Amino acid sequence: MIDAAPGGHDPFIRVRDAREHNLRHVDVDVPRDRIVVFTGVSGSGKSSLAFGTIYAEAQRRYLESVSPYARRLIEQVGAPKVGDVTGLPPAVALQQPRGGGSVRSSVGTVTHLSNVLRMLYSRAGAYPPGAERLDSDSFSPNTQVGACPHCHGIGTIHDVDTERMVPDPDLSIRAGAIAAWPGAWQGKNYRDILAELGVDVDLPWRELPADRREWILLTEDQPVVTVHPVRDADRITRPYQGTYSSARRYVLHTYATTRSPALRARAARFLTSRPCPVCGGKRLRPESLAVTFGGHDISFPAALPLSELAEFLRKETPDTEGAEGEAARALVANLAERITTMTELGLGYLSMSRSTSTLSPGELQRLRLATQLRSGLFGVVYVLDEPSAGLHPSDTEALLTALGRLRRAGNSLLVVEHNLDVMRRADWIVDVGPGAGERGGLVLYSGEVPGLAAAGESATRRYLFAGERRARPEPREPSGWLELSGITRHNLRDLTARFPLGTLTAVTGVSGSGKSTLVSQVLTGVVAAKLGGEPPADGEDNAEGVPVEDDPAAGVTATGLDAVDRLVRVDQRPIGRSSRSNLATYTGLFDTVRKMFAATGEARERGYDAGRFSFNVAGGRCENCQGEGEIHIEMLFLPGAAAPCPVCRGRRYNPETLEVKVRGASIADVLDMTVERAREVFADVPGAARALTVLDEVGLGYLRLGQPATTLSGGEAQRVKLAAELQRKRRGRTLYVLDEPTTGLHPSDVDLLMAQLRGLVEAGNTVIVVEHDMPVVAAADWVIDLGPGGGDAGGRIVAEGTPADVAAAPGGVTGRFLAAWV
Amino acid sequence: MIDAAPGGHDPFIRVRDAREHNLRHVDVDVPRDRIVVFTGVSGSGKSSLAFGTIYAEAQRRYLESVSPYARRLIEQVGAPKVGDVTGLPPAVALQQPRGGGSVRSSVGTVTHLSNVLRMLYSRAGAYPPGAERLDSDSFSPNTQVGACPHCHGIGTIHDVDTERMVPDPDLSIRAGAIAAWPGAWQGKNYRDILAELGVDVDLPWRELPADRREWILLTEDQPVVTVHPVRDADRITRPYQGTYSSARRYVLHTYATTRSPALRARAARFLTSRPCPVCGGKRLRPESLAVTFGGHDISFPAALPLSELAEFLRKETPDTEGAEGEAARALVANLAERITTMTELGLGYLSMSRSTSTLSPGELQRLRLATQLRSGLFGVVYVLDEPSAGLHPSDTEALLTALGRLRRAGNSLLVVEHNLDVMRRADWIVDVGPGAGERGGLVLYSGEVPGLAAAGESATRRYLFAGERRARPEPREPSGWLELSGITRHNLRDLTARFPLGTLTAVTGVSGSGKSTLVSQVLTGVVAAKLGGEPPADGEDNAEGVPVEDDPAAGVTATGLDAVDRLVRVDQRPIGRSSRSNLATYTGLFDTVRKMFAATGEARERGYDAGRFSFNVAGGRCENCQGEGEIHIEMLFLPGAAAPCPVCRGRRYNPETLEVKVRGASIADVLDMTVERAREVFADVPGAARALTVLDEVGLGYLRLGQPATTLSGGEAQRVKLAAELQRKRRGRTLYVLDEPTTGLHPSDVDLLMAQLRGLVEAGNTVIVVEHDMPVVAAADWVIDLGPGGGDAGGRIVAEGTPADVAAAPGGVTGRFLAAWV
Ligand SMILES: Nc1ncnc2c1ncn2[C@@H]1O[C@H](COP(=O)(O)OP(=O)(O)O)[C@@H](O)[C@H]1O
Ligand SMILES: Nc1ncnc2c1ncn2[C@@H]1O[C@H](COP(=O)(O)OP(=O)(O)O)[C@@H](O)[C@H]1O
Ligand SMILES: Nc1ncnc2c1ncn2[C@@H]1O[C@H](COP(=O)(O)OP(=O)(O)O)[C@@H](O)[C@H]1O
Ligand SMILES: Nc1ncnc2c1ncn2[C@@H]1O[C@H](COP(=O)(O)OP(=O)(O)O)[C@@H](O)[C@H]1O
Ligand SMILES: [Zn+2]
Ligand SMILES: [Zn+2]
Ligand SMILES: [Zn+2]
Ligand SMILES: [Zn+2]
Repeated sequence: MIDAAPGGHDPFIRVRDAREHNLRHVDVDVPRDRIVVFTGVSGSGKSSLAFGTIYAEAQRRYLESVSPYARRLIEQVGAPKVGDVTGLPPAVALQQPRGGGSVRSSVGTVTHLSNVLRMLYSRAGAYPPGAERLDSDSFSPNTQVGACPHCHGIGTIHDVDTERMVPDPDLSIRAGAIAAWPGAWQGKNYRDILAELGVDVDLPWRELPADRREWILLTEDQPVVTVHPVRDADRITRPYQGTYSSARRYVLHTYATTRSPALRARAARFLTSRPCPVCGGKRLRPESLAVTFGGHDISFPAALPLSELAEFLRKETPDTEGAEGEAARALVANLAERITTMTELGLGYLSMSRSTSTLSPGELQRLRLATQLRSGLFGVVYVLDEPSAGLHPSDTEALLTALGRLRRAGNSLLVVEHNLDVMRRADWIVDVGPGAGERGGLVLYSGEVPGLAAAGESATRRYLFAGERRARPEPREPSGWLELSGITRHNLRDLTARFPLGTLTAVTGVSGSGKSTLVSQVLTGVVAAKLGGEPPADGEDNAEGVPVEDDPAAGVTATGLDAVDRLVRVDQRPIGRSSRSNLATYTGLFDTVRKMFAATGEARERGYDAGRFSFNVAGGRCENCQGEGEIHIEMLFLPGAAAPCPVCRGRRYNPETLEVKVRGASIADVLDMTVERAREVFADVPGAARALTVLDEVGLGYLRLGQPATTLSGGEAQRVKLAAELQRKRRGRTLYVLDEPTTGLHPSDVDLLMAQLRGLVEAGNTVIVVEHDMPVVAAADWVIDLGPGGGDAGGRIVAEGTPADVAAAPGGVTGRFLAAWV
Repeated sequence: MIDAAPGGHDPFIRVRDAREHNLRHVDVDVPRDRIVVFTGVSGSGKSSLAFGTIYAEAQRRYLESVSPYARRLIEQVGAPKVGDVTGLPPAVALQQPRGGGSVRSSVGTVTHLSNVLRMLYSRAGAYPPGAERLDSDSFSPNTQVGACPHCHGIGTIHDVDTERMVPDPDLSIRAGAIAAWPGAWQGKNYRDILAELGVDVDLPWRELPADRREWILLTEDQPVVTVHPVRDADRITRPYQGTYSSARRYVLHTYATTRSPALRARAARFLTSRPCPVCGGKRLRPESLAVTFGGHDISFPAALPLSELAEFLRKETPDTEGAEGEAARALVANLAERITTMTELGLGYLSMSRSTSTLSPGELQRLRLATQLRSGLFGVVYVLDEPSAGLHPSDTEALLTALGRLRRAGNSLLVVEHNLDVMRRADWIVDVGPGAGERGGLVLYSGEVPGLAAAGESATRRYLFAGERRARPEPREPSGWLELSGITRHNLRDLTARFPLGTLTAVTGVSGSGKSTLVSQVLTGVVAAKLGGEPPADGEDNAEGVPVEDDPAAGVTATGLDAVDRLVRVDQRPIGRSSRSNLATYTGLFDTVRKMFAATGEARERGYDAGRFSFNVAGGRCENCQGEGEIHIEMLFLPGAAAPCPVCRGRRYNPETLEVKVRGASIADVLDMTVERAREVFADVPGAARALTVLDEVGLGYLRLGQPATTLSGGEAQRVKLAAELQRKRRGRTLYVLDEPTTGLHPSDVDLLMAQLRGLVEAGNTVIVVEHDMPVVAAADWVIDLGPGGGDAGGRIVAEGTPADVAAAPGGVTGRFLAAWV
């Protein structure tokens, strides 16, 4: 079936002796110019083969050839561990970006649509009489010539919120009334300056005169006074010259200039933002906004959902003769073609102005896929990471069509996938396994799809051919209802939704129908607000220091909230942002282990305490890498830019520390253990055994305790979080919210996950999942189907009830697909 | 002949509507998986098509797909001007680096040989008893673990040369005895400090006591004294605290820390360097140098010519059993294979430790080509720029073999070439023309080679098929001889060479035989020394600020030097290093033109002087780009990273300045004129007409006056320099030295060049060229053939005499090729 290439070139990419991560001397041949799907349970080594070996090697070769600079970097990082690869063209990866898109880029910029729309306004826009023609840069808020001069193209103006700056007016200044002030010395400095200026810093804030209060918080003046600090008990302090800054000045200045994310996030807490009064939030200068097309300035089409944008452009294109009319028609045709591709991939509900930071990883990957369809690349290898993630079954066909187009344009596709429909349609399948981690790392099968049926050990085979079904218990009766009404946000308009308690509920619907808005924003927002306003997610939500968005709970009436004591959101975001967090630190297990090391005779003799066994503080760690175990290298076009520390060779500790052993293992040896192995070694240690057992049970037995959090996949991170939850005492009355928990999971991993979620429900908790995987939906107790379409064509509940009810309901697109599984 | 690709892919790269530079809406199809040669006269647009369009577009597409960061940069720089290109794989360019290689890289590093040799020493070296095994980094002077701790891996130690610091000891300090001191205020400061310290700054230097002199020049002390400066006539100066630095401290500190290339170069003038006493110049730490292979530390094989290195390794490889022996054999086999490729490409005379900054552009390109043969890239387009440059005809076959290997490995090759032998062996030829600049820019022919015979307009056709011969005058009788004896440098050992005066001499020989050493180093060194020690080249030789190398003239005895008054070296190095130099500034024509602008009534009314029309100083220039016309963008993997200035749109001037016109043209219009057009416009202006006429005559009529010097090819730069020479009054008695002047020139351009060189000889001057082009050699009056091989196998004069003599002489490899042309 695979023909020889012209000139007799071997039509295969042949990989020999691949040894990245857990791969066990893998030899495999995959055809070029085909769609090849890589399958296997989570942790089996699919990504290590497709991304870590084939993609990385292709990148390395190409960049080394193009740039001597890249070569020097690659030499430090090390080439992928592989004997040889032949027939390997340059590669392009379409990965699910872990950190999400950047705040600065938008749907329009990543797809090039913005450029073309700007050209349309430049060349075919209606200009005010006498106005000079502008070039396309003038329609971009990111250029000097385009940006609104008042807000510098940001669209919003920040200012302080006085109520947030003084949350408790009963406090005196000395007692900390002004929450916005910095801590430590600088805060005392401001206090002392005010005292010198005659302010009574011991009076409750509310009793100070109003004009005084305003001056303290808002003045632009920076008076300088001689401060005579009160003598501290333990040290003598001299008079000094102090400069006052109002709380407002301090907050705005810090927000604008600090390089510390923590300080910036703190400042953001006291800020509100409002649309820029000059451009009205449209970010462009008045001259640019004066140019119109179809009667609207450029911000109008940019805010339309793409599906409507296409319609708008078609309607408004002039059919005039001449250069201008022709330019307009050519540009509109160009836009329409690009938009069609995106709409076909189920992204028609997005608007050009939508920031990519608000997109899910799956949406972002499909956006890049749509863009690639127009890239004109020929003869490259595309490597994709689960492109079906976030895609409703009704959109799978369009995805396959898109992949087919890339292939027909002369490229090869390597796709890591768990979706059975995508697997079935591949030209070639490579199944990796049989297990995860050290129990995986072998290629069980490589060939055309039907042949996999004979591969005995393959877990994929069981699901792909035998159609293995999950046990489907009778739907549980809810213990109560949580009802939200008056929900108006994004495409939800005055919606009422009710969620059964004490059960497992699946929320379904095509991409853009409103699932995340309903569940991850409104529901969690309402519950969090009721529980005391803690941030709903795992605490890193506002790490970017963006001023808090409008409140998703606003205007919503809720009943049934009393039955919920606790909210846990288990998502796929990384469990930590540095290579300093890992499984051991995240689960708390590391503390227990370090105490064990400190308690050994050897450690006590040497005076080593538990801190000595931390790689975060000086003492026991390797000082060359400061306990990172690796040296980071800045590299633009390559993933994984870190080289092992040459001093400790990745062990993170200094030699003396490694001389202390517990049960024959040094602290570095412990970090190098898999969960499974550690479970045996520490079976009798209460502080460790429980965490290890649960991690093993959710299918993560293959992970090493010290594997940096940043290298865990989204699916792995999610299960680590789930495990951390499961190891707590199950109290019931907790609401668990999961957004597409099956992403990155093989069907057999999904089985494990479902068993865990079931366990939570049985213990009296409520679980709500947003999900596209029909077997999972079929195994839920209750289903809420949003739709019927995405964006304005969605936002309604089109069906709800037991899986069987929804499968039988007319109206929703989900029922059709669900029917096969109930 | 071109078959369809598998899956029915179109086997062509199809370019539509290419408009880069002078290309006139070019459509052209070139086959993939073939060797395609691009031909045409210099300036016809070959590079604009092969590099500026096809390569740039391929890079753009690939990098845009790989990196959103690259995309943002590309948007600013602008995509190549082309309608569409289909069937275009990612590309790799092997260009002739204009600036030469970097000082930090060596033959070993760019070819990866160093890495493998280090592994060999690490794994299979003989360690001193008890020594710990070292890893391969320990054998690299560029790593912390490998570098000699004394010289930090540099191998040399710099110190000051006291004689150079005080070149004229008859001067007093006040009169400037200490040449090494900084100028301006700082120099006066040191003088005043010395005066305060009691030094008589008015005594001739030689009359100061010796210990005083030493202290002034060399002390490490930094005494602080109160200086009472002598009152200047026009301003009152107060006493201040001054810190003294000895001249040595000042020079070493400046050399080590300044960021100004000029200051660094100035400091370098007072430095000498000597080998590091700890490592003996071997750059490695003692532990690393203690490890041996075949009885030698790693610096020994690194310094061997590659051809001998292969032999050494073969002889010394242990045939022991076991892991160590096996590793050694595998590594040696790897090294041997790499070395063979390089030797085949005529580079066997190079050593691994040779710095790439001492290689010619042609050598560097072939080095990269050899490396690519092992890169394992598949399905890419290689674009090469005259790979035959610097190659003796006897090595052309090996070059063709190398190109063929890349093709058979699954790649496409696009080669810009002037070498007729390479053209004849191409699978496909694209001939661009018919003329240069605006008279070129068309594809005259695209197809298999024989078909070009029917392309009437093609200049290439005439040389390729008709075998057009140059007029070969009778060899001229020399007017005298310049004889050098005792030449010992590189591979020249006590050589005697004589050059006829008043004639055109060609120096020939295979690559590495010693031609450049003899002509560009020794001959020019000797003549320059006799003429008064001016630097031999065009003044930019030491711009890198490297301390002056040993004197190439040392030990050489010369006779006949009196007949030479002047030395001119015309090489292919850029005529300027910034986009501020251009044809107009370099030839001095710009001064004349600016005076014309300043003399207009309009300019006088407005008070604009000639400075107003300079783009180098504030006043008339655009201040956004400070007269550059473009904004530079840092971009790692792309060439040409500059975007037109958005304010002046590349015109470099502000609007008011552009309102002044001379003969209907603004100053920006003048810079935009071709030489040819300007020659008409300024025909009656003495200060301009001569320069323009000569530029036109050397075949550069197509160049625009304002084209930045940095964008001129080596061949263009060389002819600009030649033209600048020719426009001076011809005085005779000048020695012109040219190193491979035909590089980058089409045979028809070579004809023009030869006519110019003949003219110089007829005016009584002497011309010496290093050359590989046999038609040029055949047209010389005298030939000196070095050889017989490269490196130690060369360095002798194997034949000399008229072209006919040398063609008939036994011994040299050149005669055989020359015979066809005499
Ligand atoms: N950056 C890394 N460093 C160390 N181990 C890793 C890294 N990435 C993956 N692994 C390990 O390699 C094995 C295979 O992982 P992976 O290739 O991601 O599997 P899959 O793609 O099949 O889920 C797992 O044991 C995983 O923990
Ligand atoms: N941060 C946001 N800003 C603007 N619009 C949004 C944002 N998030 C979602 N939307 C819009 O709300 C609608 C529902 O989106 P979403 O809740 O993400 O759907 P789903 O989760 O079903 O894919 C879509 O029209 C989407 O474009
Ligand atoms: N960077 C540049 N900017 C402006 N003009 C250029 C640039 N590079 C080349 N040109 C012009 O384009 C024309 C074709 O040049 P080029 O493609 O280099 O010719 P060839 O490769 O055939 O010698 C010439 O007129 C040359 O001066
Ligand atoms: N800067 C240098 N450092 C060390 N060796 C050199 C240097 N330049 C040339 N050589 C050596 O001198 C010999 C002659 O080289 P060269 O004069 O460049 O030959 P050609 O000009 O004929 O190619 C070669 O063995 C070469 O390796
Ligand atoms: Zn604004
Ligand atoms: Zn370390
Ligand atoms: Zn040294
Ligand atoms: Zn400008």
